Amino acid sequence: MDKYEQTLESTYIYQGKILSLRKDQVQLPNGKTSVREIVEHAGAVSIVPVTEEGNIILVKQYRKPVEQETIEIPAGKLDQGERPEDCAQRELREEIGFSGDLDLKFSYYTTPGFSDELLYLYVARNLKHAPLACDDDELIEKLEVSLEEAMHMITQGEIVDAKTIIGILTLKQEGHL
Amino acid sequence: MDKYEQTLESTYIYQGKILSLRKDQVQLPNGKTSVREIVEHAGAVSIVPVTEEGNIILVKQYRKPVEQETIEIPAGKLDQGERPEDCAQRELREEIGFSGDLDLKFSYYTTPGFSDELLYLYVARNLKHAPLACDDDELIEKLEVSLEEAMHMITQGEIVDAKTIIGILTLKQEGHL
Repeated sequence: MDKYEQTLESTYIYQGKILSLRKDQVQLPNGKTSVREIVEHAGAVSIVPVTEEGNIILVKQYRKPVEQETIEIPAGKLDQGERPEDCAQRELREEIGFSGDLDLKFSYYTTPGFSDELLYLYVARNLKHAPLACDDDELIEKLEVSLEEAMHMITQGEIVDAKTIIGILTLKQEGHL
Repeated sequence: MDKYEQTLESTYIYQGKILSLRKDQVQLPNGKTSVREIVEHAGAVSIVPVTEEGNIILVKQYRKPVEQETIEIPAGKLDQGERPEDCAQRELREEIGFSGDLDLKFSYYTTPGFSDELLYLYVARNLKHAPLACDDDELIEKLEVSLEEAMHMITQGEIVDAKTIIGILTLKQEGHL
């Protein structure tokens, strides 16, 4: 079954700092036309930092879009031309002050229905102190929890961020994935 | 640590069919100002449909933002004022032709860094045939896989959609979550 949607016209509505928005008029395989609203994003990395004791280091920061502090695994946007692994080391140092051995688990699209953002998931072990200056705009607090506590925080609604849920569940399943 | 970001000015750049885009100028707790680009979304539901045999029903559809067919759990946007559970039953019927007993696992933000989209995750069991007409713009193909196959498809890069990864890993962990 061919489901390809041909672009008839593509218009940029906004080109910004972390995202751009375009509107595509498409032709569906059945001949009808439709409109797709698409958020372009440079892609990002996320990292589950695991301590020697098997705990996870999480960060707490204010997220304006949802007007709340969220508890997340360290993560950040790819700079132009930056390799995902370099970005992961940079974010680990900026956000929690560590470097580590990175294991790429997989990559995925955060919201393929309206955005092209691709997110890489790493697990970091053998953590070593290696602080870097934070971004000026990022106010970040660290916390360390056990894997079981992290699982509980998902069901209790204390962790509500998709990439963090994926990171925690992936670590929990590590032998099986 | 207070991390609240006060809105100094908020401007809509686009108000569309499935999303809107606004730009907020904010004041950070340290007194500096910054800009936040925010995608507004009405929220959505996602459902892991589990057959009597313990298999998962997935759907394959073309996703313009990533220019590929993706394999996903059934999902869809909330209509205005629609209850998440009603939306979940509607999407189950539209996308795979079943109704079922719904179990809400949790809800989460898909991309709190740039969007307010909240996504509810249900598991549906005791599936019964109850087809509804599809949306005209949705061309959907069904497939049924075992939980182990679904896990394998994540690591093989055949499943690359965040909500589907969360749905599958949550089902796998069901006794523990």
